Amino acid sequence: MMGSMNFKEWIKTQRQSVMDDYFTFLRFPSISADPEFKEAMLQCSRWLAAYLQKHTTLKIETIATPGYPLVYGEDLSAGPNAKTVLIYGHYDVQPVDPLELWVSPPFEPTIREGKIYARGAVDDKGQIFYAISALRALKEGKQKLPVNIKLCIEGEEESASLGLGKALASLQDKLKADALFVIDFDQFDQDTPAMTLSARGMVTMEVTLTGSHSDLHSGIHGGLAYNPNKALVQLLAQLWKEDGSVAVEGFYEDVVKGERGDFAFKYTEESYKKQFGVGVLGGEKGRSLFENNCLRPVLEINGIAGGYAGAGFKTVIPAKARAKLSCRLVPNQDPVKVGKQIAHFLQKHVVDGMKIEVSVLDGAPSFRGKADSFLAKAFSEAAHAATGKACKNILGPASIPIVAAMMKTLRCDVVGMGYGLPTDNIHAPNEHFDWTRFEKGFVTVAETLIRC
Amino acid sequence: MMGSMNFKEWIKTQRQSVMDDYFTFLRFPSISADPEFKEAMLQCSRWLAAYLQKHTTLKIETIATPGYPLVYGEDLSAGPNAKTVLIYGHYDVQPVDPLELWVSPPFEPTIREGKIYARGAVDDKGQIFYAISALRALKEGKQKLPVNIKLCIEGEEESASLGLGKALASLQDKLKADALFVIDFDQFDQDTPAMTLSARGMVTMEVTLTGSHSDLHSGIHGGLAYNPNKALVQLLAQLWKEDGSVAVEGFYEDVVKGERGDFAFKYTEESYKKQFGVGVLGGEKGRSLFENNCLRPVLEINGIAGGYAGAGFKTVIPAKARAKLSCRLVPNQDPVKVGKQIAHFLQKHVVDGMKIEVSVLDGAPSFRGKADSFLAKAFSEAAHAATGKACKNILGPASIPIVAAMMKTLRCDVVGMGYGLPTDNIHAPNEHFDWTRFEKGFVTVAETLIRC
Repeated sequence: MMGSMNFKEWIKTQRQSVMDDYFTFLRFPSISADPEFKEAMLQCSRWLAAYLQKHTTLKIETIATPGYPLVYGEDLSAGPNAKTVLIYGHYDVQPVDPLELWVSPPFEPTIREGKIYARGAVDDKGQIFYAISALRALKEGKQKLPVNIKLCIEGEEESASLGLGKALASLQDKLKADALFVIDFDQFDQDTPAMTLSARGMVTMEVTLTGSHSDLHSGIHGGLAYNPNKALVQLLAQLWKEDGSVAVEGFYEDVVKGERGDFAFKYTEESYKKQFGVGVLGGEKGRSLFENNCLRPVLEINGIAGGYAGAGFKTVIPAKARAKLSCRLVPNQDPVKVGKQIAHFLQKHVVDGMKIEVSVLDGAPSFRGKADSFLAKAFSEAAHAATGKACKNILGPASIPIVAAMMKTLRCDVVGMGYGLPTDNIHAPNEHFDWTRFEKGFVTVAETLIRC
Repeated sequence: MMGSMNFKEWIKTQRQSVMDDYFTFLRFPSISADPEFKEAMLQCSRWLAAYLQKHTTLKIETIATPGYPLVYGEDLSAGPNAKTVLIYGHYDVQPVDPLELWVSPPFEPTIREGKIYARGAVDDKGQIFYAISALRALKEGKQKLPVNIKLCIEGEEESASLGLGKALASLQDKLKADALFVIDFDQFDQDTPAMTLSARGMVTMEVTLTGSHSDLHSGIHGGLAYNPNKALVQLLAQLWKEDGSVAVEGFYEDVVKGERGDFAFKYTEESYKKQFGVGVLGGEKGRSLFENNCLRPVLEINGIAGGYAGAGFKTVIPAKARAKLSCRLVPNQDPVKVGKQIAHFLQKHVVDGMKIEVSVLDGAPSFRGKADSFLAKAFSEAAHAATGKACKNILGPASIPIVAAMMKTLRCDVVGMGYGLPTDNIHAPNEHFDWTRFEKGFVTVAETLIRC
């Protein structure tokens, strides 16, 4: 590690200035999903580019995509022999509905009981802004870095990263880096930092069964037409074996065998059941919660609908019944292949004569970072230094499709970091962050970069 | 049969007068399901009572119920030694939505290409009005009847017969009759009349599974929480055996064994599949369409819903999944008992630890009329005389809960008649009838009553 300035001291003295700018950033209603906010999105990207240009050593440009622009910057002054870190975050936020449940307006940052309430307070404006503030501190402290920095802040993470996804291939050279530093994750628990070293991949599908030209009266037709609701439950029930494993031929064949790794896991069976009011666990029998949640692929029915299930009763045999399915995948599994396996299974096992359509909608592979990469080592030390607690290595059970795509295109390693908590209400009314965690994030990013 | 007037001749000469009154009846928007039409319902009942008082020999009264009033009448001049027939129909109609699909306004009867278009043109204003017109002809022809007549026209058949159902016990003496003549059914096919001698009973149920306090993210929780959608398909799939029969213990135990009877059935396997676009038949394997549709109880999933199955995709493990189930029952089966058997089965077979609630909503037994009752014999001859075609005896696969209740309370036999066709669009936009069938109905009712 190079001789370094005191980041904890810097953020204490600059607190008001940093918070003012963070609040300015939060005031843009940068909702990527709603075209009504297009102008706000563009204003936000322009403000962000100007801010970075003024307050950091990075050379900033705004890169057009088929969607919203990327705010991009680089400081390659560590030279061609040094490694390069690509910092990733996003300036767009989730929609705010239902608005009436917000105690204070989502785009008027408000401090209540020591917490900062605003849409994006955490996800991801808060998290990326402590990283930006770290770059500002490094400039103001004239801190020379041992690593080249690239920064990519996209505007559509909450909208499937459409623009970046499409532009990625053409940006391969510009974004080239040794490691991707994704700043959009949670800490381990209230006090303990975490390094997130994977996300699961996914594939989403829709299956529709059609039993007749139109809905039929269930009295007049009961016992004649094969009810698509019945065919659907009979079909979907076959997807799992008695032991909870997925019955689809080949589903597990590409899963790396015997993988365990040295990872922490948040829940015990008891704590998980209690926290979420869960009476029975899913997943494969005989495997731990950690294995089922992080090391094993799973298949879920995310939606099922057929006929009338609202208030009252409708005596109908519906013409159609449908279900939405998704898998979470682990390293080495190909979403396209798994999608085909499941489609084949459904087509093979549906009752003869029932019309079936299966569409594979979307897919992305899992990714996995190395716990001993230069960035991982630097981050782990930095997080410890910032928080006073040893950093836990964890695997993320959810999916971040753009990260897997970036790693593949750029052929780089990855570290995921963040100081979010499950109680922050991201994607919900009254999203909030606190300054203590903002400071920890700031110190962690700064200390990571000087340690690389 | 008593010496009789020529009914065919009478309806030809009175055609315009009968049609004018029928159209007046159709103009009342007597929608029982919508409280907005309460005044129209009451006006319709008053008009009907006054019309019957003026044009028939029946002594008319309007009987209050907890719901809409019954229009009731009786002519007991055949004397205490004669039998009594209770004619049943209804003056309420289905709602008209979607209104924009009606070619002419639903409460402005309009003749197009020889058909009479209006809400209620068939169901049941058209059918009950040809019966009323038969009573008018009998009065005007001074035709003495061999049978006492009671007439009960209710206002809530389309709303589960709520008023009549509640008032029935207190009306036991007033409505007492030897046979119930239900005028609300279909003919056999375009040319052939039918006598409907049963409806199946039914029981409706709702089952709800709860897996967690609230909806969970299917990435974060995939492999941890047991998905209620999965538990539901696994549970419901167990309701049937390989051979298509219902797997619930005791489900068939009260079904009368070996019943066949001499009944006609509309469809062949080929004609049924073609007409409704059905690729695979339901019901029990090895049984005919007639058996599965009319002689055997069936269980259907009328609605199923859990998670998100709309456009796009939502990566959710829902907190709840639910289904609506119904059975159609055959004679001797008790809906309360069958409901309990199914509830017990569901509670026993759901995966351990998943919270389950089962509610039995509604139930009514099947009914069965005798093909050789005095009313059945008279009707069969009358229908033949009216149409020139031998009447087919059929069993109705749907349910008419109030009829079973009336038969039980009044301890009487039943004949169901009508000249509806499945193509009449009852319960749908552009409901229509035609004068040929109205005349056949008129003649059939008149000829039946003089033959009793």
